[in-house]
Amino acid sequence: MDPTHTHQESARPPGAPVRAGIPEHGRIPKYYAVKARVAVLLDELGEGGLLPTERELAARFEVSRETVRQALRELLLEGRLRRMGRGTVVAGPKLEQPLSLASYTEGVRRQGRRPGRDLIGLDRLSCPAALAPDLGVAAGDPVWHLERVLLADDERVGLESTYVAVERAPALDTEFEPDSSFYAYLRDRLGIGFGDADERLETVLATPREALLIGTPPALPMLLIHRVSRDTEGEPLERVRSLYRGDRFSFTAHLRGEG
Amino acid sequence: MDPTHTHQESARPPGAPVRAGIPEHGRIPKYYAVKARVAVLLDELGEGGLLPTERELAARFEVSRETVRQALRELLLEGRLRRMGRGTVVAGPKLEQPLSLASYTEGVRRQGRRPGRDLIGLDRLSCPAALAPDLGVAAGDPVWHLERVLLADDERVGLESTYVAVERAPALDTEFEPDSSFYAYLRDRLGIGFGDADERLETVLATPREALLIGTPPALPMLLIHRVSRDTEGEPLERVRSLYRGDRFSFTAHLRGEG
Repeated sequence: MDPTHTHQESARPPGAPVRAGIPEHGRIPKYYAVKARVAVLLDELGEGGLLPTERELAARFEVSRETVRQALRELLLEGRLRRMGRGTVVAGPKLEQPLSLASYTEGVRRQGRRPGRDLIGLDRLSCPAALAPDLGVAAGDPVWHLERVLLADDERVGLESTYVAVERAPALDTEFEPDSSFYAYLRDRLGIGFGDADERLETVLATPREALLIGTPPALPMLLIHRVSRDTEGEPLERVRSLYRGDRFSFTAHLRGEG
Repeated sequence: MDPTHTHQESARPPGAPVRAGIPEHGRIPKYYAVKARVAVLLDELGEGGLLPTERELAARFEVSRETVRQALRELLLEGRLRRMGRGTVVAGPKLEQPLSLASYTEGVRRQGRRPGRDLIGLDRLSCPAALAPDLGVAAGDPVWHLERVLLADDERVGLESTYVAVERAPALDTEFEPDSSFYAYLRDRLGIGFGDADERLETVLATPREALLIGTPPALPMLLIHRVSRDTEGEPLERVRSLYRGDRFSFTAHLRGEG
């Protein structure tokens, strides 16, 4: 729970209008009031605690089961709740992945979770024109497309799609262990070091295919990172599209002043 | 449109199963097929182009208006479409805001948009215990809470909530122009320079209050940035919670290798 947020809510007497003339209280939908009360309950139960059933919550809050369902749906999308077998439990905090050139493997290990990857496919294809500059090849040149589901402690948490020129990693299909770190492979087997990268991060809805592969509800908000990276010589290296469950991940950065 | 994504879809014959035995085609919901066809139409129309009505799209694709509505709802949430008066038009690309110590003002200007801010409130309050370490004060010491709606060309795009100790900026309530840059004020009036900051970025759903203030549909996925920053002496300075419309913003970072 964000402490500043908690503060804001407790500082305002119930029903009081928000400043600047914006009426708050009267416009809160009923499901949202239920959501706020369930959120308090989650704090009391603590991580892993079993939530009462929809029927019990509806009786406790004197609302319809449909209203409870809508409140729980948002708490699930936000990662405050998790389905576990037939019950629903209080989720732990989101994983914090550093925005850095460190690999997924490293970021997940740093938090005491076990990283893993399931191979979806490794294809060799002709480079589309739009992709060619990022990979430093001509349109039509052969490129690898490596697609893997990202795992943390065997939980599916994301989907990573990497494009790299075949000439940079000619034996990728035979030498590379698909459940290992691609960056470690480049570094240790091919002597290719990461120089720098441009990243762009946005929130998107999972497509049906992505939801199926990651095992999330369709239309779950996801965090999508586009990365274009270069090696230590400044030569184009790879283009990556990494999709992370928005309910399970956050990203951290340390910023330094320019001066 | 992500060129790699386009490529993937065109490389696979319609109806063909995805690799690794995951059946794709059969499981695509009808609304999603409509969404994909509307997305092609958006590319043809170009930015600012007026979308046909729901009724016309339903007739064109031979589906119910409800199916069209679901497809359009996702395209709106993703920022591909925008409501404009009574019509719906093709949206421009998301704004790209650099993840850096540069201010919101600077980031928006860099893209040729006019930054602005509407004051929601400037309150003086007793520092809650959870906030005290980040501001370098004791619990109960006076702190400012500055809340503003972020604007780009008069469009409401976000909500920024800043906490700073009153002792760092004693005359904030009388000296500071609430539609100007807080960072410029700290630097130019108080001689306080930014040293470094820790940021955490996640996706959340807008609360009803936030949706009302920013003027978005409720439950629109938002990008939330938590920032704790220090001055050039390494002293705690401020804590900020910045919420940006997920359909209008993306964040960029340039990463350098450790070596």
